[in-house]
Amino acid sequence: MPGMMDTVLNLGLNDEVVEGLARKMNNERFALDAYRRFIDMFGDVVMGVHHGRFEEALAALKREHGVSDDVELDADALRTLVESYKTIYEGHTGEPFPTDPRTQLTRAINAVFGSWNSERAVKYRRINHIPGLLGTAVNVQAMVFGNLGPTSCTGVCFTRNPSTGEKELYGEFLANAQGEDVVAGHRTPQPIAEMARTFPEAYQQLVETAERLEQRYRNMQDIEFTVQDGVLYLLQTRNGKRTGSAAARIAVDLVSEGLASEEDAVRDLVEPGHIEGLLHPRFSDDVNYADRVIGIGLPASPGAAVGRAVFTADEAEAWRDRGEDVILVRIETSPEDVGGMHAAEGILTARGGMTSHAAVVARGWGKPCVAGCADLHVDYAANRFSANDTTINQGDWLSINGTTGEVVVGQEELVDPEMTGDAELVLGWADGIRRLAVRANADTPADAAQALALGAEGIGLCRTEHMFFEGDRIHAVRRMIMAESKADREDALAELLPHQRSDFAGIFRTMDGKPVTVRLLDPPLHEFLPNDEDGLVALAAREGKDLAAVRRRVESLEEVNPMLGHRGCRLGIVFPEITAMQARALFEAAVDVASEGVDVQPEVMVPLIGTKAELANQRAVIEEVAEAVFAEKGQRVEYLIGTMIEVPRAALMAESVAEVADFFSFGTNDLTQMTFGFSRDDAGKFLPFYVENGLLEDDPFRALDQEGVGQLVAWATEHGRRTKPDLKVGVCGEHGGEPSSVEFFHRIGLDYVSCSPFRVPVARLAAAQAALL
Amino acid sequence: MPGMMDTVLNLGLNDEVVEGLARKMNNERFALDAYRRFIDMFGDVVMGVHHGRFEEALAALKREHGVSDDVELDADALRTLVESYKTIYEGHTGEPFPTDPRTQLTRAINAVFGSWNSERAVKYRRINHIPGLLGTAVNVQAMVFGNLGPTSCTGVCFTRNPSTGEKELYGEFLANAQGEDVVAGHRTPQPIAEMARTFPEAYQQLVETAERLEQRYRNMQDIEFTVQDGVLYLLQTRNGKRTGSAAARIAVDLVSEGLASEEDAVRDLVEPGHIEGLLHPRFSDDVNYADRVIGIGLPASPGAAVGRAVFTADEAEAWRDRGEDVILVRIETSPEDVGGMHAAEGILTARGGMTSHAAVVARGWGKPCVAGCADLHVDYAANRFSANDTTINQGDWLSINGTTGEVVVGQEELVDPEMTGDAELVLGWADGIRRLAVRANADTPADAAQALALGAEGIGLCRTEHMFFEGDRIHAVRRMIMAESKADREDALAELLPHQRSDFAGIFRTMDGKPVTVRLLDPPLHEFLPNDEDGLVALAAREGKDLAAVRRRVESLEEVNPMLGHRGCRLGIVFPEITAMQARALFEAAVDVASEGVDVQPEVMVPLIGTKAELANQRAVIEEVAEAVFAEKGQRVEYLIGTMIEVPRAALMAESVAEVADFFSFGTNDLTQMTFGFSRDDAGKFLPFYVENGLLEDDPFRALDQEGVGQLVAWATEHGRRTKPDLKVGVCGEHGGEPSSVEFFHRIGLDYVSCSPFRVPVARLAAAQAALL
Repeated sequence: MPGMMDTVLNLGLNDEVVEGLARKMNNERFALDAYRRFIDMFGDVVMGVHHGRFEEALAALKREHGVSDDVELDADALRTLVESYKTIYEGHTGEPFPTDPRTQLTRAINAVFGSWNSERAVKYRRINHIPGLLGTAVNVQAMVFGNLGPTSCTGVCFTRNPSTGEKELYGEFLANAQGEDVVAGHRTPQPIAEMARTFPEAYQQLVETAERLEQRYRNMQDIEFTVQDGVLYLLQTRNGKRTGSAAARIAVDLVSEGLASEEDAVRDLVEPGHIEGLLHPRFSDDVNYADRVIGIGLPASPGAAVGRAVFTADEAEAWRDRGEDVILVRIETSPEDVGGMHAAEGILTARGGMTSHAAVVARGWGKPCVAGCADLHVDYAANRFSANDTTINQGDWLSINGTTGEVVVGQEELVDPEMTGDAELVLGWADGIRRLAVRANADTPADAAQALALGAEGIGLCRTEHMFFEGDRIHAVRRMIMAESKADREDALAELLPHQRSDFAGIFRTMDGKPVTVRLLDPPLHEFLPNDEDGLVALAAREGKDLAAVRRRVESLEEVNPMLGHRGCRLGIVFPEITAMQARALFEAAVDVASEGVDVQPEVMVPLIGTKAELANQRAVIEEVAEAVFAEKGQRVEYLIGTMIEVPRAALMAESVAEVADFFSFGTNDLTQMTFGFSRDDAGKFLPFYVENGLLEDDPFRALDQEGVGQLVAWATEHGRRTKPDLKVGVCGEHGGEPSSVEFFHRIGLDYVSCSPFRVPVARLAAAQAALL
Repeated sequence: MPGMMDTVLNLGLNDEVVEGLARKMNNERFALDAYRRFIDMFGDVVMGVHHGRFEEALAALKREHGVSDDVELDADALRTLVESYKTIYEGHTGEPFPTDPRTQLTRAINAVFGSWNSERAVKYRRINHIPGLLGTAVNVQAMVFGNLGPTSCTGVCFTRNPSTGEKELYGEFLANAQGEDVVAGHRTPQPIAEMARTFPEAYQQLVETAERLEQRYRNMQDIEFTVQDGVLYLLQTRNGKRTGSAAARIAVDLVSEGLASEEDAVRDLVEPGHIEGLLHPRFSDDVNYADRVIGIGLPASPGAAVGRAVFTADEAEAWRDRGEDVILVRIETSPEDVGGMHAAEGILTARGGMTSHAAVVARGWGKPCVAGCADLHVDYAANRFSANDTTINQGDWLSINGTTGEVVVGQEELVDPEMTGDAELVLGWADGIRRLAVRANADTPADAAQALALGAEGIGLCRTEHMFFEGDRIHAVRRMIMAESKADREDALAELLPHQRSDFAGIFRTMDGKPVTVRLLDPPLHEFLPNDEDGLVALAAREGKDLAAVRRRVESLEEVNPMLGHRGCRLGIVFPEITAMQARALFEAAVDVASEGVDVQPEVMVPLIGTKAELANQRAVIEEVAEAVFAEKGQRVEYLIGTMIEVPRAALMAESVAEVADFFSFGTNDLTQMTFGFSRDDAGKFLPFYVENGLLEDDPFRALDQEGVGQLVAWATEHGRRTKPDLKVGVCGEHGGEPSSVEFFHRIGLDYVSCSPFRVPVARLAAAQAALL
């Protein structure tokens, strides 16, 4: 990316050489102009003399001469300027400006090498996930001069419009100038089309060259050029950056122009990031908001959102009801916040990782979320937060960029997303190329419909616990948890059964003909209980129980490390009636919907197993219920029983676990947590430090850690298939929608990936690109 | 173990056969006696008619006949008794007593098979860690009769005294009786020596046979016999159970008698449990306390303890100061409780596993501890707890058995431990046989001295954080944690440095010539902060800080899953000054002590690494400090830098981690937690259920899970040595002192195990036994 690292122009000039240059070019003014530019750049880039110091001297000279434009300064004025620049240089560095060209060159090369580690370069690489590079090369090349007089110019152009993809030469140029003048903004560049009038020959040559370059690279080009005394020189050409909609249009056009094949288009012309950009609103490209960024968190759910800050779910709903857009700001979210999360335009949390509650829920809805922003200090009591010396009170405007993790004070301008027909076309080509199936994680019929619309070929993860929070069901759930006998527990479960059954029926209908993987209850039971005194009092009153007894029960469920506690299949094993109720709801729904003529493909998934015995235990419960339901209804449906592989031990024991599993689905979020020993909720204390300081190349909750966690995934896949060669293997962690991870899953032979609905198109493209590698 | 499963004697009798038996034996009374015994046993064992029902009829009959002993009932009386027994049988089973011998046999065989799953058999196998057996065999054998009259008897004898090991026939017998009479206790058996008078020939034969059996089995025998009409029959012989001191004496005697070699003695004659018994007090063998057991927790630290129940560490110290023995009962312990824990005879907790704080600290001291006793409901406010309907108030007597996990109401009788000379001798033989080195986990010079006395060959784990709690140091620790700048943190660390240095110096002196592995700070920082309001107020006052700021800092350190949080090397990486302080203290101490002529062998251990980069980072900090100290002092010492392997990813990446490690030490406690996804603090909610219901064969925190966690240990050992063939590899988790785990570690080629000092003798024996397999 140009501009991310340093460069020094006109190197080699000194008092002697400048006279030679003047003679050679027969242009003293030009030579002195080049010389003063060189002193400025060398001082700034190599020696750290701020560019502003030189600018001040230039401005003063222009005032003195009564001119407004640099080009109006004549040779004598520039000679004076060179001398003041040298004085400024010596004043700040304590040594005279070096006159030996070799010394200049050595120092400049070292400075460019050094700029590899400049803050902006490091940040650019981090934001764009360019890890693991050892360093840079430095080019040393001859100069051509766009500042040799009115017959010279310099400019930048794209062979197609990078915003729309339209086929037209797009860019700008500046007569009698060097490259940095375009950037500096003293003079306003002219649209590239103007060159046809002022530099007709060079322009015609540029048009033809642009055409040739596109033929050569089969891609839209971003060209830097200089015209020196009427002659066109190309400084650089590279594939141009473009927006998502432009990428899709250019891809489709290049294919129809015969310049690229469909495979080329899928492999080279559209990036996963382009597709992601089409699915979510974003900040306008025209605005630089860098100085309004007050914090950077994790890019937990892509897209940008703007609204007024609120601090509770209730406030979020109340403001929303009044027609206000809000951003819900929480230290962390819990399932009780979902109403407010849904009401908000975006969600911002101070704690929690890429797979925290806020992140998972937000991604499921395609709602922007910045999570784990450690810069935030939230004061609920005062309804405000502070971040790096800025305080945001309730009602203040706030913007978040869930694609980059930026938190921005004020109301940024938003650009709406739009999935273009061109993009649909490219994704269709991708579907024809990829081998990996792409499913979605979806918990409701509405989510499932959304997933289908975005191209999902099944549901890879339907989390039943999310159904437990809807409407009044939570009361039955709590009654089930508070039950002191199996009979009481079964009564409460019986209340939940019809709800789960109708949820499952809706999803099965929506997914007619496609597989639906339903995960049994996973979170620890205390997640369903109130965690404050008022909530406990209300619970005791509602259930007609003694407050002390309620408190004792709640306390007895508290855990030191809930991630490693009584959850997943461990619940269904100790309380088989929970598994039985869920299985009954599922199979009753499956048979009912099948009898409507729908093609139902249920896959029951047991979470968090670590041993074959656990899965065998739950399998027996599920099969018994299935047979009972089939007997009662007089109709059978085909189904699979499989397991999440998310505990390291389950991966290690894959060969024996596969004996009782019809499929494996890697839960790479939890597998990453346990393999690294990183709690996703707590890793914010050190993970950003690790990534910034190179201890990890990337956040392993964002992109799969292929050599560590990936080793377990590959091992388990291979060993599971030793037992069952046709074992169906997929992944349902959030990595299922991350391109580098998708490529890995393709490589090791998985059957499918599953991700949140809004990442499905990204996964479709990434899976095709993986197949083309 | 006899008595753990069922048996039925005299099978085959009915109204017809009993007459034939009477004729054949020429003894009607005997035949009827055998018949009524058979009805009783068959009814009880096969049909579930309680033995007491028959006893009542027998007692009534004896009252009627005015006799006190069964043998005084004549044939007529017994005939009546047989009829009443049949009536009782039919009354309870609803069917007449079966007369067909084949029916009797089939039912009896099935009943014995069924008794495999009786509660006592299941419990016995669990307590004795006899997992994974598929079932039992059933023996059908001809009867001999000890109840044939005054020339008959039955008895049990040991070829040596099972309590002391003395070489003498030891046991008892009962004339004119069958086996169950000895157990039933109606008649008092006579000492075996009496047989010399009453059954001189049979006794002589018994003495000679006992000698032959010992020669044959080269072990002390437990013999069941019957004399039928003057003829000796052996019913069974097996190696006899014995106490630890008897085992050692018998082993030494058998070797000196030439019956066994030293290797035989180490392999077969002394069990690890025997050695453990010699190191800890235990309940008297003479008392059956089964009906006083009010709860069973985890056998967290072996040995028995008796004292009055107290509920706070302060009370424990206060009662101790008054000369009272106390048992400290806590929901769970924290480092702030150590004073009270030390003052107590034993520790009982309601939560926490085999490697919880209470368990680890107690084992370190050799103090009995029962942890994670889920039966307990502790009410701190009322200073009492209840367990299965029994309430224990402060001051009530309580006994705990840390070897079995039993909690017993009342004051049991204790037997003091005594490491005998014989045991020392056997352990010496073991030392000559084993290949695995045995080190101890010890944090203080006193612990180190204890470990040395028990045969440790080095310190495998010196936990530096335990030093942070001693005396006033905690204040400097807290100041370090509260520091808002690196400079403030360094100031606080500087206060701690001399304390750590002198601790290290003391340990190095004690361990002269032996390696000492020092682990850098491991627990999350919030463990060092107060967790109640009073503590926060005191902390704010002491540090002159704003209470709100203190609270904010404490809250910012709280973690959802501290086990997976900001701890271990993650602390030293984000705050390298902590590592630097600890390294400085260690190297200054090492050089100082070395200059006294002591042979110092420091090994610096970095905890919780998951990537090579983490270890490389900390290694650089440690090496820089080492070089600085050596330069300052003008003297070097040799040292190693290695790492704990306790995060699954570290094991997976062993080949690359070994590039920057001089040694690996498996932290199998944490490795088990993360590989299974089991929090040791929370697993009490389901782990006992898992073990009882066969989902796991054993608690993986007690005995290493060889196929899962062990697979990682073996993999990491092999792959680490691919990079460094001479990589030193050990284990410092509590499994290092558990015999089946020690055998595994031997088999996969580890160099050493390290365990708490009081398990060192056990590990020495287990390591030798592993070498003899």
